Amino acid sequence: MIKSKAYAAQNATSDLAPFEVHRRDPGADDVQIEIQYCGVCHSDLHTARGEWHNTIYPTVPGHEIVGRVVCVGEQVRNFKVGDLAGVGCMVDSCGHCYSCADGEEQYCENGFTGTYNGPVFGGENTYGGYSQTIVVKESFVLRIKHGEKDLASVAPLLCAGITTYSPLRHWGAGPGKKVGIVGLGGLGHMGVKIAHAMQAHVVLFTTSASKIADGKRLGADEVCVSTNREQMAAQANQFDFILNTVAASHNLDTYLQLLKRDGTMTLVGAPAEPHPSPGVFNLIFKRRQLAGSLIGGIRETQEMLDFCAQHEIVSDIEMIRMDYINTAYERMLKSDVKYRFVIDMASLG
Amino acid sequence: MIKSKAYAAQNATSDLAPFEVHRRDPGADDVQIEIQYCGVCHSDLHTARGEWHNTIYPTVPGHEIVGRVVCVGEQVRNFKVGDLAGVGCMVDSCGHCYSCADGEEQYCENGFTGTYNGPVFGGENTYGGYSQTIVVKESFVLRIKHGEKDLASVAPLLCAGITTYSPLRHWGAGPGKKVGIVGLGGLGHMGVKIAHAMQAHVVLFTTSASKIADGKRLGADEVCVSTNREQMAAQANQFDFILNTVAASHNLDTYLQLLKRDGTMTLVGAPAEPHPSPGVFNLIFKRRQLAGSLIGGIRETQEMLDFCAQHEIVSDIEMIRMDYINTAYERMLKSDVKYRFVIDMASLG
Repeated sequence: MIKSKAYAAQNATSDLAPFEVHRRDPGADDVQIEIQYCGVCHSDLHTARGEWHNTIYPTVPGHEIVGRVVCVGEQVRNFKVGDLAGVGCMVDSCGHCYSCADGEEQYCENGFTGTYNGPVFGGENTYGGYSQTIVVKESFVLRIKHGEKDLASVAPLLCAGITTYSPLRHWGAGPGKKVGIVGLGGLGHMGVKIAHAMQAHVVLFTTSASKIADGKRLGADEVCVSTNREQMAAQANQFDFILNTVAASHNLDTYLQLLKRDGTMTLVGAPAEPHPSPGVFNLIFKRRQLAGSLIGGIRETQEMLDFCAQHEIVSDIEMIRMDYINTAYERMLKSDVKYRFVIDMASLG
Repeated sequence: MIKSKAYAAQNATSDLAPFEVHRRDPGADDVQIEIQYCGVCHSDLHTARGEWHNTIYPTVPGHEIVGRVVCVGEQVRNFKVGDLAGVGCMVDSCGHCYSCADGEEQYCENGFTGTYNGPVFGGENTYGGYSQTIVVKESFVLRIKHGEKDLASVAPLLCAGITTYSPLRHWGAGPGKKVGIVGLGGLGHMGVKIAHAMQAHVVLFTTSASKIADGKRLGADEVCVSTNREQMAAQANQFDFILNTVAASHNLDTYLQLLKRDGTMTLVGAPAEPHPSPGVFNLIFKRRQLAGSLIGGIRETQEMLDFCAQHEIVSDIEMIRMDYINTAYERMLKSDVKYRFVIDMASLG
């Protein structure tokens, strides 16, 4: 048994505070990672505050984990002590359903085990990356080919990166395709970078004119202010694919109308209040599709990390100390971060 | 100029009554058809009563037209006098946009010309199939390979048939696929027959237990009463594709939950009141898609007619006289028809 310092929420209304978790001793196929950095995802906040009504307390959030391998079990083949490694949103899945067989563990028919608050479908609670060390079975550990100097900025790829990469790949973003990214936050800024690297024509949609310059810097070919009716009308019926990263309830028709025939808009955020019901005529008259997408499988997460290393893509981050986390949550609620907080885990020591 | 007896609505509240329309003399690429039968589609009623707020009066509905060619222009190649022929929902489109180039005239970027109430996007009004004769350019006329004895039952294929065939084909209904058909009306009964002929495993969803036997007779492998929670729960996460033909507002989540990963539910009916907003988690957690589909292109309509002739598929109809149309509309509103009214146009003489 390994003792690890951590930060936990004891209930839905308490701040996160120091806590100690116990990790299992690494088994034959386990990898132990000393966590160097952990990204801060909005899901961390939802879980800490019990907003999805499924939190098991105490809870230790964090599923954008990067660090260095410090121990490997005897059957581990692809990692050795000293390697850089990452862990994303999942640490296990059933392994035998058709989605697992397809390498789409995120859609495991029996429910994957989350890196934190894992046992939604049974089992012991899991504790995430706001901690010093973690033990994970090899098949859920990712290799990192970025240089060590970029390590902190790589952390958010493990959730924000794969959440945008997977749908962009699945719905065919690439040369000759016009792709919209709705929202410029943690997810959206990764979507812009990745879609640009996939050589799509990228249009960023944002409510704030103040983000135009930043959108272009990140790789958008055009930035459209979504409150500007003329700008929106000029984009009608043109998009092959729109990745909608906005988690707040909003009018989906505004964007569905921008899709060309057979185009798809995919939602990766789930609002607390339902979106207004999308218009059926908007779907029928261009055979458009409204879809959803959840992170990505392990194989695809590795593909994404390799793609990002090759294209020199990392997240734009603001590094924080562990004891700043409660303030960071408040700032995240105000979208006051460009574009992802990452915790320097040395500050927990 | 050709005078033709017809039935028209003079305004949104008047019954349909005798009227005379003028057809152009056939041009070089025109086909003139003596209409023998015309199916009665719910869109006819919507248009006659101005329920879509776009009706140009007087209006002559009818877009499930079959009959015999009585005149062809000198450049017509594929039809000769005496041939059986059909006309569906469209009589023209721009011909040069990318959707027309793809043979998807129903999604014409400049708006196709409807067989009736056509000039939504400009031009003179068009009058539909509740009439003795019609003149249509050859490229919008369909060949009919069914025997003449089936001609009346073929009429509904021109709208109800293609509206269900096209999405079933587009989303890959076929051997090894589990396909749901929601609703057993004019569209749904064609969907069941066609999906069965495509060799999919077909499950019919209906609110009325009284339709179970009929559903199986039409080709459903299973019939699920959608108000029965246990029956619905037993179907969860299993469908590759669901064709939803219900035009009334209803809970889409009930059916989205039945789709397996990457499954699609496609709507072909548009409710007057919006559906309750579909749940985003239902889309995200299985990468499901909600889509719409509109009739089909001319090439695909011909393909559907040939497929139906090969598989001996026709519509189940109730033949009526032209002067019964107002009563038929009232019965259609009560779903009191198995499963499509077809007007014997000889009764207009």
